[in-house]
Amino acid sequence: MAPTVTAALCVIGNEILSGRTQDRNIAFLGNGLNEIGIQLSEVRIVPDIRDEIVEAVNALRARYDYVFTTGGIGPTHDDITPESIAAAFGTDWHYHPDSYRRMAEWYDRRGQEFTEARKRMTITPVGAELVDNSVSIAPGFRMENVFVFAGVPQIMQSMFEAAKPALRRGTVIHSRSLSTRLVEGVLAKGLGAVQQRFPELDLGSYPFYNTDKGTGVALVVRGPDRARIDAAATEIYAFVEELGGEVIEDSAS
Amino acid sequence: MAPTVTAALCVIGNEILSGRTQDRNIAFLGNGLNEIGIQLSEVRIVPDIRDEIVEAVNALRARYDYVFTTGGIGPTHDDITPESIAAAFGTDWHYHPDSYRRMAEWYDRRGQEFTEARKRMTITPVGAELVDNSVSIAPGFRMENVFVFAGVPQIMQSMFEAAKPALRRGTVIHSRSLSTRLVEGVLAKGLGAVQQRFPELDLGSYPFYNTDKGTGVALVVRGPDRARIDAAATEIYAFVEELGGEVIEDSAS
Repeated sequence: MAPTVTAALCVIGNEILSGRTQDRNIAFLGNGLNEIGIQLSEVRIVPDIRDEIVEAVNALRARYDYVFTTGGIGPTHDDITPESIAAAFGTDWHYHPDSYRRMAEWYDRRGQEFTEARKRMTITPVGAELVDNSVSIAPGFRMENVFVFAGVPQIMQSMFEAAKPALRRGTVIHSRSLSTRLVEGVLAKGLGAVQQRFPELDLGSYPFYNTDKGTGVALVVRGPDRARIDAAATEIYAFVEELGGEVIEDSAS
Repeated sequence: MAPTVTAALCVIGNEILSGRTQDRNIAFLGNGLNEIGIQLSEVRIVPDIRDEIVEAVNALRARYDYVFTTGGIGPTHDDITPESIAAAFGTDWHYHPDSYRRMAEWYDRRGQEFTEARKRMTITPVGAELVDNSVSIAPGFRMENVFVFAGVPQIMQSMFEAAKPALRRGTVIHSRSLSTRLVEGVLAKGLGAVQQRFPELDLGSYPFYNTDKGTGVALVVRGPDRARIDAAATEIYAFVEELGGEVIEDSAS
């Protein structure tokens, strides 16, 4: 079996902490990494403050196989991620020569000025490799096991696609989600018993209230082996029916 | 002026990390805290693993005035937050007597059994105070500066309302958001100049792509003094017009 490959995400942005912007990158990256067998194991959201970024990135890169960052790589004064990543690695930063050339050509073709602000978008730590951006040209970059992406979801997603081939793949975790209108207090005993018989699976219980499915609980079985997941699901069907309930939704991924 | 009061949020949940569930609590709490003058300064998302919860909560409670946790306080086997918080404080846990009495009465009135699973929902560290839940009875709790809330947004929100009166209030940060269709590379210089003239304000620049407002940038000015925010906004209007653009949206909070 393939090994477990782990990752962390560091979201950099005052706008997420203030509640102004609803983050969309965490769930995207959690799903996207899982599809290639990498487990998103921790997320930290920090403000646009250099020391906070340095501390979070250094803690995470020592602990997980990969670290992704989102946010703070644009042309404005509050975009301080590239310099902060250089500081985290204790290296200098520069205008990355290949990025500089690409960006200079891009603005030249459009008859626009390659301003000092736009040059800021070519900053990387010395030694970083570029990560292509198919949406808006200014690239992200990779420094050792740290991938630095934009915060705008469309751009972040294009950078993730570009970075994917370089990522080591591990065990893909499959899942099956069974929803019922029974409440957790009624389900807990049966669910705990199934968890005990399938210790290698991860059984989660997620209540929902007043959604388009009504009110109830989604029982989620996760693990590397589809046959074992299906065996656990069969047991869940059995105890839900025994309790007088029914499975109203059953989806696998 | 009131002091700065800071908070951190620790989101506990495999379902957020796997991407199965889109978090709604971070933005809610960021906004809700800001309205009462508390600054959400860091968020960590950790899996349902005791040692990870203990480590994150202990790091955060030492560093910020308040810590909020969401998730893991239900009746099922994967709900391990209360025991983990007790471990973080190095204290024992118990069935909180007042919570136990409330819950026993609740199920008794409904002719339902107060099962072992449901009793788990009364677990708190010894010494904790309850935080009321007006949605589904099982309370959250407070242990020193750590508030432990449910993960389901409706319940989390009701617990936050119940906890609010106990929170020390600091400086409220106001904001004004001006949107334009100019791009960041064009805006950066003028914006940087305004930031330099208003060092006590926080000027952020947030691009949006293909939204219902089209494509452009939101320039956000944040700070404690509305008059200073408005003065900075006036300067932003001026340089946006000088650049041949216009402010297409202007909102304050």
